[in-house]
Amino acid sequence: MALAQSIPTPEQLQVPETEAAPKKLSMVVFSGDMDKAMAAFIIATGAAASGIQVTMFFTFWGLKLIQDGERTGSSVFGRAMGLMNRGGIDRVGPSKFNFLGVGRWMFKKMMRSKNVASLPELREMATDLGVKMIACNMSMDVMEIPEGKLITDVDQVAGVATFIEEAQQSQTTLFI
Amino acid sequence: MALAQSIPTPEQLQVPETEAAPKKLSMVVFSGDMDKAMAAFIIATGAAASGIQVTMFFTFWGLKLIQDGERTGSSVFGRAMGLMNRGGIDRVGPSKFNFLGVGRWMFKKMMRSKNVASLPELREMATDLGVKMIACNMSMDVMEIPEGKLITDVDQVAGVATFIEEAQQSQTTLFI
Amino acid sequence: MALAQSIPTPEQLQVPETEAAPKKLSMVVFSGDMDKAMAAFIIATGAAASGIQVTMFFTFWGLKLIQDGERTGSSVFGRAMGLMNRGGIDRVGPSKFNFLGVGRWMFKKMMRSKNVASLPELREMATDLGVKMIACNMSMDVMEIPEGKLITDVDQVAGVATFIEEAQQSQTTLFI
Repeated sequence: MALAQSIPTPEQLQVPETEAAPKKLSMVVFSGDMDKAMAAFIIATGAAASGIQVTMFFTFWGLKLIQDGERTGSSVFGRAMGLMNRGGIDRVGPSKFNFLGVGRWMFKKMMRSKNVASLPELREMATDLGVKMIACNMSMDVMEIPEGKLITDVDQVAGVATFIEEAQQSQTTLFI
Repeated sequence: MALAQSIPTPEQLQVPETEAAPKKLSMVVFSGDMDKAMAAFIIATGAAASGIQVTMFFTFWGLKLIQDGERTGSSVFGRAMGLMNRGGIDRVGPSKFNFLGVGRWMFKKMMRSKNVASLPELREMATDLGVKMIACNMSMDVMEIPEGKLITDVDQVAGVATFIEEAQQSQTTLFI
Repeated sequence: MALAQSIPTPEQLQVPETEAAPKKLSMVVFSGDMDKAMAAFIIATGAAASGIQVTMFFTFWGLKLIQDGERTGSSVFGRAMGLMNRGGIDRVGPSKFNFLGVGRWMFKKMMRSKNVASLPELREMATDLGVKMIACNMSMDVMEIPEGKLITDVDQVAGVATFIEEAQQSQTTLFI
């Protein structure tokens, strides 16, 4: 009996291996540029569509992508930032060739003509596919963006520790 | 006998652990800037040289790094983009201090004087070391870059699902 | 006895699984922008505070974050770069809305008013938490930054192979 007890059962042999755990992908969305946001949401929705648990942690300029587009800020600085950074996901411009908005218009037109989903559509798709969207509380505090000015699809307002925990369970981590 | 059968053999105990699988590194090359491209190719060739399987997924501005340098685009927008984005890997400028091309010239000169491989040389090295280069089909479609305008070293034209599959098998993933 | 010997002991069953190995996070700090540097140091200190071994590999513009702030460069190009890139971690500006330094001043003021640690404080915290800081020797060579102009908290001057080794042992890798 002692021998039998010393023989590990198949269950005891089970190690929590990477393959068995749910597959996860976590990304920091730091950028609020149109082109990088496209890349972020395309990767997120693509991964979620193939059964991977996806977490997007929006911080700094990335917060613009999950704001409702209304003005924010209470202090002089906060309001100045809100003004410079105003408009929601539909007003972000590309990181290059923006030319005061011409680039944004051109990119949108090119993508529409190629039947590529727009940013608002991609974000909706992400929500439908169960992508977890977390807003960085520290950035919100510094940029004076209250929780009420975020879109309702945001799952959580949390700090960097939450991202780090998600990242540790993820096979793939990206900083965009 | 029943007991002996219930005792797992060493082979059965083998779990598919990370160490046993081939080591892999996957990166999204989103940027077409000279300095970031240098970083991408230096990491890729460094990893490949130490026996790691490397996949580079070129998307958005990164496509410039694997184009033959000829003009692209058929629509007005496509041609405008092809014009702004023309020139292959040898014409990309740094993300900072470009000053209308002076920065590019200066960086090239500094790197040559320090015997650092140039971007075309690094890309060739990557090919020689078996780095897998994938071109993003969606970006190619939006930017109107036909497959014939890519360098022949490109291994595959594929979508985001292919990158996600590669990334899931990789210990290291980067977005550059 | 032969049977007993063929039965693996719990110790023998132990596979080097991800959970058992020390948790690690490695990042390439390519950017020298204030906002991205904030993100890098906040992630690094956050991870280190929760018991994760963190390695920061500073390369290209990121080197500015671990310089003592004195002028660098010996050749004409090196001195021009040292001039453009002068000042240590306290003089870096944000990637957006810098407006010749106004943005930097504004961001600093906003962060101070929200009790967010400054970059010099975050870097000191990183050192105190045992974050390993590596300076990229190739970038130092190209940009003509001698080892003596780095802060003394830098643990190592090394090449890309060292980063790749660290990255292979890490659950989380980021390129910032």
